[in-house]
Order: sequence, then C-alpha cells, then structure tokens
Amino acid sequence: MNVGRMLLGKPLATKDLAHQAISKPVGLAVFASDALSSTAYATEEILIILSLAGTGAAILGISIPIAIAIAILLTIVTISYRQTIFAYPNGGGAYIVARDNFGEVPAQIAGAALLTDYILTVAVSVSSGVAQITSAFPGLLPYKVVIAVAVILLMTVVNLRGVKESGQIFAIPTYFFLGIMFFTLGVAAVKYFTGSLGVVGDVDVIHHTALDSLTVFLVLRAFSSGCTALTGIEAISNGITAFKKPSSKNAAITLVWMSSILITLFLGITLVAHQIGALPSHTETVISQIARTVYGKESVFYLLMLAGTALILLMAANTSYADFPRLAALQAGDGFLPRQLTLRGGRLVFSWGILVLALFASLLVIVANATTTALIPLYAVGVFLSFTLSQAGMVVRARRISKLKPGEKIKGLETDLEYDPHWRKHMIVSAIGATCTFVVMIVFAVTKFTSGAWLIVILIPSLVWCFFRIHRHYKSVAKALSWDSAPPEPATRTVQTLILIDDVHAETVRLVNFAKSLQHPWKAVHVAISPDKARLVEEKWAKRIGEGELVVISSPYRLLAEPIQDYVEHIQAENPGCYVHIIMGHLAMDSYWGQLLHQNTALIFNLALSHMDRVVVTTVPYQIHHGGIVGGTTPRMDSAQATAPQ
Amino acid sequence: MNVGRMLLGKPLATKDLAHQAISKPVGLAVFASDALSSTAYATEEILIILSLAGTGAAILGISIPIAIAIAILLTIVTISYRQTIFAYPNGGGAYIVARDNFGEVPAQIAGAALLTDYILTVAVSVSSGVAQITSAFPGLLPYKVVIAVAVILLMTVVNLRGVKESGQIFAIPTYFFLGIMFFTLGVAAVKYFTGSLGVVGDVDVIHHTALDSLTVFLVLRAFSSGCTALTGIEAISNGITAFKKPSSKNAAITLVWMSSILITLFLGITLVAHQIGALPSHTETVISQIARTVYGKESVFYLLMLAGTALILLMAANTSYADFPRLAALQAGDGFLPRQLTLRGGRLVFSWGILVLALFASLLVIVANATTTALIPLYAVGVFLSFTLSQAGMVVRARRISKLKPGEKIKGLETDLEYDPHWRKHMIVSAIGATCTFVVMIVFAVTKFTSGAWLIVILIPSLVWCFFRIHRHYKSVAKALSWDSAPPEPATRTVQTLILIDDVHAETVRLVNFAKSLQHPWKAVHVAISPDKARLVEEKWAKRIGEGELVVISSPYRLLAEPIQDYVEHIQAENPGCYVHIIMGHLAMDSYWGQLLHQNTALIFNLALSHMDRVVVTTVPYQIHHGGIVGGTTPRMDSAQATAPQ
Repeated sequence: MNVGRMLLGKPLATKDLAHQAISKPVGLAVFASDALSSTAYATEEILIILSLAGTGAAILGISIPIAIAIAILLTIVTISYRQTIFAYPNGGGAYIVARDNFGEVPAQIAGAALLTDYILTVAVSVSSGVAQITSAFPGLLPYKVVIAVAVILLMTVVNLRGVKESGQIFAIPTYFFLGIMFFTLGVAAVKYFTGSLGVVGDVDVIHHTALDSLTVFLVLRAFSSGCTALTGIEAISNGITAFKKPSSKNAAITLVWMSSILITLFLGITLVAHQIGALPSHTETVISQIARTVYGKESVFYLLMLAGTALILLMAANTSYADFPRLAALQAGDGFLPRQLTLRGGRLVFSWGILVLALFASLLVIVANATTTALIPLYAVGVFLSFTLSQAGMVVRARRISKLKPGEKIKGLETDLEYDPHWRKHMIVSAIGATCTFVVMIVFAVTKFTSGAWLIVILIPSLVWCFFRIHRHYKSVAKALSWDSAPPEPATRTVQTLILIDDVHAETVRLVNFAKSLQHPWKAVHVAISPDKARLVEEKWAKRIGEGELVVISSPYRLLAEPIQDYVEHIQAENPGCYVHIIMGHLAMDSYWGQLLHQNTALIFNLALSHMDRVVVTTVPYQIHHGGIVGGTTPRMDSAQATAPQ
Repeated sequence: MNVGRMLLGKPLATKDLAHQAISKPVGLAVFASDALSSTAYATEEILIILSLAGTGAAILGISIPIAIAIAILLTIVTISYRQTIFAYPNGGGAYIVARDNFGEVPAQIAGAALLTDYILTVAVSVSSGVAQITSAFPGLLPYKVVIAVAVILLMTVVNLRGVKESGQIFAIPTYFFLGIMFFTLGVAAVKYFTGSLGVVGDVDVIHHTALDSLTVFLVLRAFSSGCTALTGIEAISNGITAFKKPSSKNAAITLVWMSSILITLFLGITLVAHQIGALPSHTETVISQIARTVYGKESVFYLLMLAGTALILLMAANTSYADFPRLAALQAGDGFLPRQLTLRGGRLVFSWGILVLALFASLLVIVANATTTALIPLYAVGVFLSFTLSQAGMVVRARRISKLKPGEKIKGLETDLEYDPHWRKHMIVSAIGATCTFVVMIVFAVTKFTSGAWLIVILIPSLVWCFFRIHRHYKSVAKALSWDSAPPEPATRTVQTLILIDDVHAETVRLVNFAKSLQHPWKAVHVAISPDKARLVEEKWAKRIGEGELVVISSPYRLLAEPIQDYVEHIQAENPGCYVHIIMGHLAMDSYWGQLLHQNTALIFNLALSHMDRVVVTTVPYQIHHGGIVGGTTPRMDSAQATAPQ
C-alpha cells in the first residue's frame, strides 16, 4: 500500500470534486491537442498510400487536392458541430446526442465506436510520438515498442493520480507546438520564395516490390487515410461546461479557432512536404523530413520541432485518459457496462476505466509493433460512425422542433426542446454533415477493409451485443433483488456448524474457541488429501483438543471443495431447510508478498461454496506479524472505495 | 469452467501419477531435444560475433577451430556428467547435487541459475524456431513476436493438460530432425567431393557501420556464443529414473550417444556453413542457407529441413515445461519458493510452475523482439554456473568418499556414500570438468557483460536473496503456528454481531434471517457514502424490516472498510476481549462473467478486515440464477486442488 500511496497520492474527499471555468485560449489548449496532433501523421499516411503507385512528384502531388478535399470536409463538420454545441450546452458527445434522439441501440453503437476510438487515439498518438523521437535518434528504433509501452504506463500512473484540470499545464505544450509549427511553415515559405528551400535527401524510403497503378480506388484510400486529420474535433462538444459563461458561445468560438488552425496547419504541412519532396519512410517521419530540410539536422530548431510534435501527440493520448473513463462511466451508469466503471477511486478518478484503456492501448501498440501506419486502418471508421450518428441525431432533433408551435417546449430529454424558427437551416446543415461523414465512413470501410477495417466492422456490433447482454443481466438482478421477490423466510432456521481444519496447531485453538463462543453445537471436518496426514491430524486432535467430533472425508482427486460440497449436501438432506455454517481459518500476514506465499484457501472456499443455497461461510482470521508474534495491534489496510452498491 | 474443462481435460486421481520405463532410443528422443536443438543456432551465433570484424572467409573460418574447442569442452563435460549419473541413480540435477554436497546457499544458487535458464530455453528455442519458419516464409517476419507468443501459449495449454510421458510422441520429431540433418550433411559432403556444392547467394547480411578488429577478446566472445551448444546436456541426469533397469547404466549410454550425435552435428553444420560461405543475417537462419544451397529453395527437402529444425526447437522448449515446474516444486518443498508451486492441479501437473514459466518466457520474447541473438548473452552464464556447481559438488563427494574405509557407508544424504577405490579418478574427472566450465562461465560473463550478461550477474544473487527471504517467512510462520505458541484462550468470549447492509431488498431478508437463526443479539450497520441514499435506507428499514437497531456511519472519502474498522475498534474498546462478528451478503451469480459485473464487496471486506484481531467475517451467499430466479439447486463449481496445507 505504501508504494501505491507514493505513486498515487493520498485520497481525496468527494466534495473536492469541482470544476474551474476556463477561458477560450486555455480551452483551446485543453481540447485541441487531439485534433491538432493528427497533423503529425495525416500527411504522411496520404503519402504512404500514394507511394504504392510510385514515388514520383506527379503521383505524390495528388496529396494536395486530397488535402483540400479533407479541409472542405472539416469545414462542413465544424459548422455542423457548432450547432450541437448550442443545442447541448451541458455537453453533447455522440453518445448523449444519439441516446437523446434515437434511443438505446444507436446510443450503444456510438458508445462502442467512441470507446474503440479512444483506445486507438492512445495507440496511434503514442506510436506517432515515439516515431518522432526515433526519427531524431535512430539508435532508439529497436526499442520503440518498449518506449511506447513505458509512455502509456507513465500516463496511466499520472492519470490515476488525477490530473487537476488546470489548463496552464496543458497550455504549455499546445502553444509550444503551435509556435514552432507556424514558425517552421513561415521559414519554409520565406525560403521557398527566396529559392533556398531545397529538397530532402537520404530518406530510407519504403520499398514496394511491385507497384500498383494509380486507380480511383487508390486515391480514395489515400483520402481516407488523410481523414484521420478530423479525429478529435468533437472534443470541445464533450467539454462545453468547462468553459466560462456564456459557455456555449465560448466553446463555439474556440471550435472555429481550432478548425481554422487545423486546416491551416494540415494544408501547410502537406504543401511544404510536397515542395521538399518528402517521401514516406518507416524510419523517419514527414515532420522530421520537413524540419531537417528547413533547419538542417544539426540545428536546435530541428530537435525543438520534433519535441513539440512528440509532446502534442502525448497530450492527445492524454485526452483519451479523460474521455474514455468518463464515457465508460456514463454507459455503466446506464447499465451497459460493468458498474465498477462508475466508481471514483481514492483520487476521484474513474480508476477502472483508466486501467482498461491502458491495457487495451498497450496490447494494440505491442501487436502493431508501435507502427502508426498499421493502426490507421482501424482508426477512423469509428470516428466517422460517431460523427454520422451525432449529426443524424441533430437532424431528428430539428424535425421534432419543426412540429412545435411558438413558445411550446418538450421536457424530459437531455435538454429541453424549444420552438426555433431556424429549424430548417439547422436541419439542412446537420443533414449535409451527416451525409458527408457517412459517405466518408463507407469509403473508409471499403478501401481499408482488407488492411484492417474489417476488424472494426466486426468489433463494433460485437461490443454492442455485449453491452446489451450486460444490460439484461443488471435488469434481471434488479428484478431478483426487488422487495416483491423476497422469498418468505421462517422466523428462524436451524444452524449446523462445521469447523474446517487442515491441521491441529495454534490457529485451530482460535477456530474452536470462536465456535464454542457462539454456543452452538459444532463438528470439526478434515478433508484427507493424504491419508497419512489424516491419521496424524486425528491423533493430534484427540491429544490436543480432546473434545467435539472430528469427521475425516477422503479426497482421491486432491480436491478441497468438492468433498465438502458432498458432505454439506448430505447434512442438508438430513436437516431440510437448515443453514450449514462453515467456520474456517485464514492466516493473515502483515504484508502482501507474505500473503501471496500462502494458499488463502478461505477465499477459494468462499467462492466455491457461494453457489450452494444457505451455506454460510465464516472466516476467522489469525494474524501473523513480523517474526510470527500474534499481537493485539491491528494495522490499517486501505479498502475498496465505492460510490455505488453491489 | 466449461472452457477450462474443454481445454484441459477432466481431472485425474492422485494414484494415476505413474511412470513408464523407457528404452534408450526413446530416452534419447525425450531428453536430447534440448541439447540437439542448440545446433540450430550455435554456429550462427559464432558467425554473428565474428562478422563484427568482417565477413571475409578468413575471419568467418575461425568458426572451425572455435567449434572444435567447444566439441572438446563438450566431451569433458559429458565424461564428468556420466559419473554423476552413476552416483545419483534417483536423479542428479545440479540443485540436488549442490544441496547434497554443499548445503543451502549453493543449492539455491544452482536453483536460481537453472530456473533462469529454463525460462531462457523456452524464449531462445521458440525465437529460433520462429526464425526458421520466417526464413522460409519472409512474409511472416513482421508477425514473428505474435507467432512466438502464440506458440508459447499453445505449449502452455498442452502442458497444463499434462503430457503423458509416452516417448513415442517425442520420438517422431527428434528422429525426423536427426534423419533430415544427417541426410543433408551427407548430401552436402557428396556434393562437396563431386565439386557441385556451390555457394549461398543473395543473403540479407547483417550490416555493421564500423568494423571491429579481430582481437582475442572477439574470438572469446564468439567462443562463448558457440558454447550455447552445450545447453541441455544435463537433461539426462535429471531423468535417470525414467529409464528401464539398470537405469543408471542405460542413462549413461544414452548420454554418450547424445553427446556423440551433438558433436557430429555441430561440427558438420559449422563445416558446411563455412564451405557454402553462409553469412549471418537477421532474416534468414544459417540452417536455411545450408538447406537452400544443398537442395535449392524450391525443393521439398528445403522445407522439410526447416520444419525438422523448427520442430526440434519446439520440443526443446517443451522440455523446460517439465523441468521448470519440477525444480520449482522441489525448491518450494524445501521452503524457498511459494508453496503453491508444490500443488498438482487437476491434471496432475504443477500448474503454477507452468504458468510462471509461460509468463516470463513470453515477456522475454516480447522484450527481445523474438530475436535469438538478443537473448544469447543472457543464456549460458546460468547454464555454466549450474554445470560448475554440480561438478564441484561431485569433487566434494569424492573427497568425502576418500575418507571412508572399505565397506563403510554414510547414510542420510540423497544417496548413501559408499567406499569406492576409484575415488581419485572420479575426483580428477569432476575437478577438470568443474574447472573448464568455471573458466568458460567467467569468459562468458566478461565477454558478454555489456551485451546482457550483466543482467544475469545481478539477477541470480537477487533471486537467491528472495529465496532466503521466503524461507525465513515460512520458518517464522511455522514457529508462530506451532502448538507451543498457541495463546491461552478463555473457554468462551462474548460475540458482538453486526449485519452489514447496503440496501433493504430481498437479500437483506436472508441476512437478517441468518442472524436471527444464530440466536444472538445483533445490530445492522449501513456505511453512508451518499447521505441521500442513507436516509432512504433508514426509511425502508423501518418499513420493511421493522426490528433491530440500524446504525448509519458516514463516509466522506467514499471508503467502505475504514469507517467499519473505526466502528469495530469502538466496539472492541467497549467490550474488551470480545469477538466482533460481521455478517455480510454476497450475490452469487451462476456465471463468471456475471460475477465480474458485481463489486464482490464481501471478498474485499474479507481481505480488509482480516488484519483486525478477533474480527470474524461471515458471508451469506444469495444465489441469482438465469433471469433472476433464486432456486434451491446448487450448481457445482470446480474448486482449488491441493496436495499441501496452507
């Protein structure tokens, strides 16, 4: 526990859970890192696909019209999401919008898509961040998986401690990244116009044995790879309440700022990459190639640019550490995910959500060998599915509003539906957005199907199926526990007490003493795994305890629980309706590692016998302290923390 | 449980634990795979080190004198181990020999060295096996880590089922490997003498940016890499009892066969590799280069040779699945490792040992990226340390025998010490063996120190330290539990009963009914994490239960256990010497996944409260079946299996 306390800090009280209102520039820093960081790899992913048809300037130049098409799509989605921000001032993530306007199934589809994407955001961003570092220090290339997993671990610990939402900390890397990026693009522009920009040399370019021809399909594939630039633009609509009042207005302005910056950066990087003749490579990122050409590899600005890019990518991964647990808690609260996800740990964070995210992201990084390109085909299907559901939900909402009379209101939803004369305009904007993102999703799923998108196409329905199974389970348990289903109980039942003994030593005295203190008749039972030992136990029992009956049950399969289950059934058959009350010992060590050195049969029995009706298990602990002194002091142990019932 | 049963098969009774005596040819197949398989990588590892100084024929040709030196070393170790086989007819592994002749510390050093090496055997053999497969199918190269981990998983499942020691299964791959290997060497010899052997072409050779010069140090490094050929020759001395009578004699003959085959193969492969100009490569093994040159890449014999090599490597890894758990059980029986390692699972195998081995081997494979060369520096230090300890132990034994008179016997050791006129000869042989292996161990540790051996040099003493800490723990627990330290108990104590309730529903009725059936006074306690809920619980209690006292304790930090600990301390202060008896509910689902969806607070409390003296926890289970019907049937659940006490 001391290590845990040291890593995670002391527990916080529930009332400490509070928010601070943030300004627009800070909000930009907090929520934009996910969206802006995708500029670090989006251009590169377009080039990687195009290079399947060759690495000539004519072919790679197609990246420019592709980037312009993506910028137009981004503008459409931004306008559509602005409306959502005003319609859902308390936070309008795709899950809430889908739940509010479509109902349970589409909401769970959005939830599955989003959870998958949060995991992928961590895996992609960390992999890309590590790729920036290994571009500068190629000696680290063989350790990229280890570095990536270590970074995920570090972020997990930081987030289990709980990140105070003080935007200042977030502001530094975001603005550092923006500063160095715009500075670099500016220098590149100046050098271009003065004719001194030059061309990147000595790139370890990806080698394809056979070239594809440049089909429409290939261009669409490149387009969908580039669409990863859109990931993260929904972040602000989740966090509206964090903004200063009027929060919707401030959030909307921040969204427009963010999109403008994103479009500028993405187009700028794509143009400069084309001018310097950047080539896709497995060992050097396009960002590194740009920085190297603009500044030279020895320049400190080269390292600053890669550091800034790596930092914003890690910040982007970090946003998933807030988003994933929050959405999982929301879904768990609705009964579609395990309830434990709703519990805030000692540091007020959703610890289980953080751990689940870290586990799956680490697995993905290991399986994909920390290679961004391997993860991209899994990435954007879910993002665009959630975009589509969210905007389609807004269309439904506008349709409902269209049926209201002036002044009329419908309550009971996430936000009240109010009459709005502009409903037609809103509906058209959302419909255009939904259609565009839906088309892109289909393009993505088709063009990337064989390279990995199939996994997501299978995974999302499977997750939704699981969510509904979990929901059914909770509903049936709630029904079983309802007061109306309480079975009638007689005033009292008879209790048959058994003491389970393994040997006759100091602990046995305590067990017998407790049984006698209850002032109930009792029997001792020994499961004989070894007949020799059983004889010894019988002898010791007669000599040392010398009272009560000792029953020996043989166990040829070395099982402990089954023979006792048989014996209990025998007793229950003889005494219908009785409680069988089993008393057993538990050696409690004063350290975790000490506890692990023992078999802890009490816990195992508790599980094994819990499936028998009216079989009650009592555990009598026996403390063993340093050097084996049984003392009266009771060391404290941190316990489970909970905000919800079983 | 059904999945587990399907994967692992039905449980076996203790009396099924029996051995069948095996013949020499089968014994060779069973025990030789580890030793023989090292020929798959030993030559290659020599070449990889030599290539640091260049890839000319003159430099790589040094591999031949190095191989001859290793063959001489192998002969010495074989002669020395033959003696051990006769001295320890019940099995003379390094751990037993060291324990018998030196005592605890050297035995634990041997144990640490061997356990480490069994893990490395799995990692190295599986990595090399996968490298053979990816040599034939380079398209699988990016997936080598995933394939290696999948192979380890598969072997784990097979071994948890329990491998019947029917040598027939082992014989097929071993003799297939020997057949194809000798056939290939024969064909190569014929082609060489007819001048049609040719030279390997188109190898993706390892590229070094700067060449070292060919120093003595480099040659010693290459020699120690090649010494991995010796790994596994101790296997027969562990398994003497498996042979037909006279088992020592049969085992000794098998050992000599094995060493002769090993030397022939190793020298043959090294010679042929040199003739065809094989080059070290990260993408193609030397075995693949030989097979390709001898047969041509399209030949079915090429694939057969790689398949045979991959198979024998997997067999070698599989022997660790028998050796590691057996040695771990031996050390655990002596109290130096967790006792759980001595338990045979349902299928009579040491399940925990198998799982620990699989876990660490998988981790190693992942960290080393399934690259044999990265693992080799960790490998042989431990092997040669155990060789040295074992043979030095035999020197001590011979010294003791030298002091006996004819006919005199010393009992009480693993095997009786008997007068033997040949003690001087035995002592000299063992001393030469011990000296040679000791020198090689030092050479290995020094030349490989910076490339990884440092880890083992730190790890083995650390493990030994851990073993002794564990030993001290068990000794102190045994002392604390001894009958003499049983504290005097009064005939009976008072019992204060508390019912822990979270809500008032169907389960609560059962809890109250059990408390009333015990016919003891009781109180109900509710920990108020949310004040609103607490008020509701009080109302429901009054309305639905309407008897007994309900105490509400507030918990501002959302903790469950701490407030109860405080309350219990308060009761204990008021009633000195009493038992505090806490009754709580446990919702028992009829599926594991269902159980995981609940918080299982009873288990958590059992752990948290077990550190308080005389605080007894009773768990009253409440079964929830499909659809929530609480029934009287009691589904069976497999339980812990054990051969030893807590």
